[in-house]
Amino acid sequence: MDLHITRDQLTVGLARVQGIVEKRATHPQLEHAFLQAQGNQLRIVATDSTIQLTADYEARVDAEGIASTSAAVFFQVLKSLAAPVVRLRTVGNKIKVTAGSAEFNLNTLPAEDFPHMPKVTSKASLSVSGGAFKRMIEETAFCISKDDNRYGLNGAHLEETHGASGDPRLRLVTTDGSRLAWSETPFEGVFAMGARMLLPRKVLQEMKKLIEKDDDVWQVGFGDRAAIFTGPGLSFQSRLMDGDFPDYRQVVPAAFRRRLEVERDAFSAALRRTSIMASDRNRSVRFSFEPGRLVVSAQNLDAGDAREEIPAELSGEPIQTGFNVAYFQDVLGATRSDRVRLELSEPLDPCILRLPDRDDCLFVVMPMRLD
Amino acid sequence: MDLHITRDQLTVGLARVQGIVEKRATHPQLEHAFLQAQGNQLRIVATDSTIQLTADYEARVDAEGIASTSAAVFFQVLKSLAAPVVRLRTVGNKIKVTAGSAEFNLNTLPAEDFPHMPKVTSKASLSVSGGAFKRMIEETAFCISKDDNRYGLNGAHLEETHGASGDPRLRLVTTDGSRLAWSETPFEGVFAMGARMLLPRKVLQEMKKLIEKDDDVWQVGFGDRAAIFTGPGLSFQSRLMDGDFPDYRQVVPAAFRRRLEVERDAFSAALRRTSIMASDRNRSVRFSFEPGRLVVSAQNLDAGDAREEIPAELSGEPIQTGFNVAYFQDVLGATRSDRVRLELSEPLDPCILRLPDRDDCLFVVMPMRLD
Repeated sequence: MDLHITRDQLTVGLARVQGIVEKRATHPQLEHAFLQAQGNQLRIVATDSTIQLTADYEARVDAEGIASTSAAVFFQVLKSLAAPVVRLRTVGNKIKVTAGSAEFNLNTLPAEDFPHMPKVTSKASLSVSGGAFKRMIEETAFCISKDDNRYGLNGAHLEETHGASGDPRLRLVTTDGSRLAWSETPFEGVFAMGARMLLPRKVLQEMKKLIEKDDDVWQVGFGDRAAIFTGPGLSFQSRLMDGDFPDYRQVVPAAFRRRLEVERDAFSAALRRTSIMASDRNRSVRFSFEPGRLVVSAQNLDAGDAREEIPAELSGEPIQTGFNVAYFQDVLGATRSDRVRLELSEPLDPCILRLPDRDDCLFVVMPMRLD
Repeated sequence: MDLHITRDQLTVGLARVQGIVEKRATHPQLEHAFLQAQGNQLRIVATDSTIQLTADYEARVDAEGIASTSAAVFFQVLKSLAAPVVRLRTVGNKIKVTAGSAEFNLNTLPAEDFPHMPKVTSKASLSVSGGAFKRMIEETAFCISKDDNRYGLNGAHLEETHGASGDPRLRLVTTDGSRLAWSETPFEGVFAMGARMLLPRKVLQEMKKLIEKDDDVWQVGFGDRAAIFTGPGLSFQSRLMDGDFPDYRQVVPAAFRRRLEVERDAFSAALRRTSIMASDRNRSVRFSFEPGRLVVSAQNLDAGDAREEIPAELSGEPIQTGFNVAYFQDVLGATRSDRVRLELSEPLDPCILRLPDRDDCLFVVMPMRLD
């Protein structure tokens, strides 16, 4: 292998695999980037044995070949370089990296042993825009359970659904048992996975970074217990998770007795301030739905208390209930809108949070008993 | 106590004490800010029982009084506020904070029990400019030992010295046993501490933040085993440390056999790159002083190796020696200059680092044995 490539392209290539590789892998090559110089391209592959990224970058190849080296060390080296063009060549069992006055020899492992994942043969595929895909991820990823024992809640569920006018939509759903989020987008093509399609959290994290332009088109292909996402110059595949995602529709109430609408920025600022005193483990804040206003308050035995009123439109009777303030802050942090709407029946019923101008996303927050 | 004050001023006031107060104090008021409304000012005091900051801020005082509340919680509250003016008043045993629609009640402790440090009665004082004081701190603080067992090396030594033309200078000296830094500035007034004046690390950290303008004048006063620094609107006092600072002059060689001068940016970039492979505990990098160039290189068994040449002017015979690369990076990070000069006799002798255009700072780095 002997090639010249721009430092900026190669740095992007190595940046992209930093979240893919394992940090302390059982198989050492799961920490590595696999490099393949062929034609006028350098291909970079990385995998953690559940997900795999393959991406191609333009290069001037003087000798084709393959090599495998630590993704973390190589990335550090690239970030340190000042010269705009980098030469990579294999010398013995090292990769010699030269750029300007800098010279590095990187240790390698036999590239022919690199643990590539099995190729995904896609039975059918659909396409979505990069912008829509990224929005769906942002609006749902925060609800994935961080508890590794909650099998089935550690991933994001992808399914086909339909809008009010019967238009086909892709829906991404996540829940950690205390809250739920879904977000939808129209798509073209065929959704070929039946009921079960559970994507690992890491897929959402990495896809969000891989989507660079809103108007790029991404293909989503479905293989044998696997999905493959193909965008400009790169393909990203993942094994699907084995767990069963719960029947989430049953926690979304079909009707409600109270509805409250508030201006989003005022709501967000009041929550941020009140949350300072919501420092118990449950981060609990009291919501008092009153005619013309929402009063949020919190109390902390050590520090003191906080209280704030926000103008609001209430339909239905006044009510008081408690929530984990972080659950609302996560929704507000992941969405844009001028106003937000809360729908609720009784103090211990789930609360639905909607953006009034959007019918393609919905959030559910479970309340908590106030002392 | 009942007063109105601008949010920005009060936020600055609480920001300044965050580094002073203890995080988990044995005496709970060492986590507190002491507030005193008097005349047209709010005074804020905080102490960790070794250092104490007292600062005054303009306020509209409707009722004078004192109060004491958690500095960390109060700061969090202030940062969350949007309204430009804040009202503080004591209600029962709480401080009620109101600003716009936000309302907080902060828990307090009896302010009359606040553990003020004894007042420092200054026997004599000198004055320096804020800019010079800050530069002295930046050029020396990084060499203070982080090892709490190295008593006497955990602080910064302040003494009176003289420039080449006999002009009185203040010199700040720090060392951790493997390296040393000193930095000087002219002063006016009287240095009244004799030989021993050892300032805790925290004094340097906090003074650096407290100095806001280069042309502010700071008074340094000397009391009984204490120093007091007085700047615009604030005074900052510290107990002196009991340890003995070593006789540091004996580690600074009076003569040398080799001198090498390099362009600073090239040296810095080469060290940054080479340091990637200097990942052993000692961060060791090989320096090869050669005619016309300095070659820096490092080797890492797991990752590979790095090597770089920098154009240099060498006086004396070629030589190879090893250094902890971080020691040089710290000096370069704390200073400005176009070129740097290294002076050295034999491979295991201390290396002096100077900035050719400055006679008021000097750095010493101990070499290490290369394998």
